[in-house]
Amino acid sequence: MSLLVVGSVAFDALESPYGKVDWTLGGAATYFAVAASFFAPVSLVAVVGEDFTAKDEAIFKGRHIDTEGLERVPGKSFFWAGKYSENLNERVTLATDLNVFAGFQPKLPEKYRASKYVFLANIAPDLQRDVLHQVKGTPKLAALDTMNYWIERTNSELRETLKHVDILMINDSETRQLSNEHNLMRAAKHIFKMGPSTLVVKRGEYGAMMVDKRGVFCVPAFPLEEPHDPTGAGDSFAGGFMGYLAAAKNLSDATLRKAMVYGSVLGSFTVEKFGLDRLRVLKRSEIHARARHFAKLTQFKL
Amino acid sequence: MSLLVVGSVAFDALESPYGKVDWTLGGAATYFAVAASFFAPVSLVAVVGEDFTAKDEAIFKGRHIDTEGLERVPGKSFFWAGKYSENLNERVTLATDLNVFAGFQPKLPEKYRASKYVFLANIAPDLQRDVLHQVKGTPKLAALDTMNYWIERTNSELRETLKHVDILMINDSETRQLSNEHNLMRAAKHIFKMGPSTLVVKRGEYGAMMVDKRGVFCVPAFPLEEPHDPTGAGDSFAGGFMGYLAAAKNLSDATLRKAMVYGSVLGSFTVEKFGLDRLRVLKRSEIHARARHFAKLTQFKL
Repeated sequence: MSLLVVGSVAFDALESPYGKVDWTLGGAATYFAVAASFFAPVSLVAVVGEDFTAKDEAIFKGRHIDTEGLERVPGKSFFWAGKYSENLNERVTLATDLNVFAGFQPKLPEKYRASKYVFLANIAPDLQRDVLHQVKGTPKLAALDTMNYWIERTNSELRETLKHVDILMINDSETRQLSNEHNLMRAAKHIFKMGPSTLVVKRGEYGAMMVDKRGVFCVPAFPLEEPHDPTGAGDSFAGGFMGYLAAAKNLSDATLRKAMVYGSVLGSFTVEKFGLDRLRVLKRSEIHARARHFAKLTQFKL
Repeated sequence: MSLLVVGSVAFDALESPYGKVDWTLGGAATYFAVAASFFAPVSLVAVVGEDFTAKDEAIFKGRHIDTEGLERVPGKSFFWAGKYSENLNERVTLATDLNVFAGFQPKLPEKYRASKYVFLANIAPDLQRDVLHQVKGTPKLAALDTMNYWIERTNSELRETLKHVDILMINDSETRQLSNEHNLMRAAKHIFKMGPSTLVVKRGEYGAMMVDKRGVFCVPAFPLEEPHDPTGAGDSFAGGFMGYLAAAKNLSDATLRKAMVYGSVLGSFTVEKFGLDRLRVLKRSEIHARARHFAKLTQFKL
């Protein structure tokens, strides 16, 4: 079933102990769409500037990614520059040039309005809510990502938007900041009162955790010897997770657990190379092999 | 099969946001022995002072814990005082009074010398090696814990001792410090060259990871809403892990995975209350129920 994503398509300059790239395609919606497209057709809503060329757009071609909602406007695309620490766990933002993204007003093409699976990547909460209004009826599943900036500066807008989403998908520190609870179990209870019935916490090198009324599910991060660049890992996780759910068409506990695994699989591939380099060449067979590897990582028999 | 533990029996003063105790029995060997005794008979080697009373010793009675190796000498027992931060993740040491522990020279009673399973809790590496020399023949399994103090100050002694152990069981930061590698997969490779064939990394609220030549196994921490006191969690983990192995009498991958789970189960109970309060009243049925809960936390079917 078609999966709508609204978020950023951007250019990044990235530096880690493993190398440096000065200009590479990035953005949450890009990582999400490419990752999700391995499982289900994706409808993309984003905005780019004149620096976004046919060569950049090529990444969406030949995949099940509809780009009718990719708006092009005069000016430059969103640009982000960051540098990772020796251990890849910390990063310094060197530049955040919003450019055309500053005026982003997501507009869903008519054919997107029937989307049943919706992912609201990290953008202003009022825009996220506006996207939900443009979707016809109630989506089968709406998930949302956000960040400290919105939690701090537009908290009431975010709270209003959260009333309308099923899954909140954020990292440890965002979970703690939003709920004002260090303990993630108590944090989840707070967040359930805000609207979402499922909390997915992305924990970087520690994996991911899902909490809902049925219980808790944990999946570790894939142990890589040479992670190169964490950029986009969380968005790739979200893409694998939502893509798997959109393809599965049911929301059973067993399906959500598998979605967590496939999200982790996609996230783990992304960090293997810079930017989108690994996802560009990723094969379905590799995805399934790594999912089986995740089973080996975690399974035991009492 | 009998399991030998050599380490500290101490008194602790503990403070966390959940409360405060001024004087409670603690020490790595105490937590280890109590946790392991749910699975296998334990032989304890430690030293205490005159402040250690029959009331304190009662914790070992009625369990399969042999205290012939618990030496009593004039003076005070090892005393540690610590205070945990709001989130329990950081702690400040307020006092470390080694007292009689400063002169600790582990002496194995004759009947302990046939031990086939040996756990060397966190003491000076030369003493750990001396214990191994006192054991007759080569133990079936020797595991060792250590800390930053020994890694920094007695590195070559530690390296010498590591040549003779099978399992190194330490936390994230110790793993990184010892191997000089941030990445845990590369750290494991370094550590295998030092002697151990298995690395167990204790990661606190993120669970534990085991790496050996057969692969990697990850187990999450049990999600608790109200952890009270992390003191002894790692030692209880080690006790559950080694106790399970000593009872299982084989070292297959499947057995080691189950040992990781039972280690996590024991660690998770310990943090529920202050000091040994939870382990004192713990029942075998609760252990098995929580192990099944760990399965629920992690299992999925592709």
